[in-house]
Amino acid sequence: MGGPGCAFRNIETQLKFMEKLHVIKIGGNVIDDESKLQVFLKDFAGISGLKILVHGGGKSATDIAGKLNIPQQLKDGRRLTDAETLKIIIMVYAGYINKTITAQLQSMGCNAMGFCGVDGNALMASKRLNENVDYGFVGDPHSVNSALFKILLDQSITPVIAPVTHDGKGQLLNTNADTIAKKIAKSLRSDYEVHLIYCFEKEGVLLQVDNENEIKTTLNSVEYHAMKSEKKIFAGMIPKMENAFDALHSGVKAVVIGNAEKLDELIKGSAGTSIVHD
Amino acid sequence: MGGPGCAFRNIETQLKFMEKLHVIKIGGNVIDDESKLQVFLKDFAGISGLKILVHGGGKSATDIAGKLNIPQQLKDGRRLTDAETLKIIIMVYAGYINKTITAQLQSMGCNAMGFCGVDGNALMASKRLNENVDYGFVGDPHSVNSALFKILLDQSITPVIAPVTHDGKGQLLNTNADTIAKKIAKSLRSDYEVHLIYCFEKEGVLLQVDNENEIKTTLNSVEYHAMKSEKKIFAGMIPKMENAFDALHSGVKAVVIGNAEKLDELIKGSAGTSIVHD
Repeated sequence: MGGPGCAFRNIETQLKFMEKLHVIKIGGNVIDDESKLQVFLKDFAGISGLKILVHGGGKSATDIAGKLNIPQQLKDGRRLTDAETLKIIIMVYAGYINKTITAQLQSMGCNAMGFCGVDGNALMASKRLNENVDYGFVGDPHSVNSALFKILLDQSITPVIAPVTHDGKGQLLNTNADTIAKKIAKSLRSDYEVHLIYCFEKEGVLLQVDNENEIKTTLNSVEYHAMKSEKKIFAGMIPKMENAFDALHSGVKAVVIGNAEKLDELIKGSAGTSIVHD
Repeated sequence: MGGPGCAFRNIETQLKFMEKLHVIKIGGNVIDDESKLQVFLKDFAGISGLKILVHGGGKSATDIAGKLNIPQQLKDGRRLTDAETLKIIIMVYAGYINKTITAQLQSMGCNAMGFCGVDGNALMASKRLNENVDYGFVGDPHSVNSALFKILLDQSITPVIAPVTHDGKGQLLNTNADTIAKKIAKSLRSDYEVHLIYCFEKEGVLLQVDNENEIKTTLNSVEYHAMKSEKKIFAGMIPKMENAFDALHSGVKAVVIGNAEKLDELIKGSAGTSIVHD
């Protein structure tokens, strides 16, 4: 009693009883393509068991800002979020996209519930402070109300999360959806066997920048740092990979990055890049 | 045993143990006035016990439609909701207004959760069919997922509901907020002692059309029909009153109509018009 073998068996027994939870992030490119989105949502609705969808924005916020004559500024690929831009982001991401996705999932037999970080205090964030760049109303999430997610999941409700958070003082904040997906996955890792899947327009981590067909099927952090220094992984992929490794190293069971059109295979592990321990 | 006195006592005992629930509807006029809205939300946040807020739209949808060059048509005071108008309603009502109110309530210590009828299948509706007028994407709600509301209320979460529903087949629908408030109140009347309060810009039901200061403090259906035939109650007040009497006659404990600036007094019954049995 109490020996290491026994402790190991106890942990194993606990793990066996942890229910699987898929946290899936879908990006803007798929959201902008109505037919691709519908196929993706059918695949998502078909996942058996517990699941959470986190969605990004897409171009429609930029389109509407253009029609309303609100100029958009980007800095290193990130939108600078002034008050008027924030209003559009709330309308489009937390309003139109969130409710349209939720309505489609409901019609597919998935009891989806769309909300964002302010709702039920799901995700609280701090406004990003930077000496050099004023990102505006951009938030870095620091806490997840995991109890809320558990209550909904226990009722077989599927949360559909828009990338908007709040600071608890009445301010809504534009927030990166990759980071939100990671934060949610991490916050639930003690309660579920969490599988985090980042869906985007590529097949996974490409072996060569200019070859879309050949991907690395597994990637550990040593390989990642080598590929980063060789500039094979760059730009927007870097924060995505940092989120992926952070999730894995924090106890998320599996992390996969791949093509949104192959969700079933990503879940089975037969497509995409699996992020693995060294 | 089993006598009428005993049965009465049993009912009385049950009633004693029903928790009080305030279902409060706030209209567009207050939503359009930032400082009035903030005062209202402070009063709302201060209500002890269980509560649900249902909000209407306000003028910002019309403003944005104007800026986007989407012409708005009204028929008998109701907006005709074509596909483009529906998109704006979802963005503004279920997005901007819903999240702004929720963020303010969160900052006031009220654990609000903003959502609309599609979320968790909260409110299902049928698209309105009318031989003479095509109202477009307007829904008449026919069912409330009271289990969802109970789960949230049990967790001391305050639902904040935007006036958008769905048909279960993927279609979102613009829906009257007065009707939504009534439907929610009715659906929860067996589980809670429900008090339904309609807040608007007037003091209550006016005794005379042109005198804003004198209101009827109580109104039963006989008096209502008399005032309606005398044209003292007319236009948009008629569907509001029909909703109010329907709620009362269906078992909602109390129904009050009055000024949003006097929420505390409306709750205490010292302001507004109380809708009463004959």
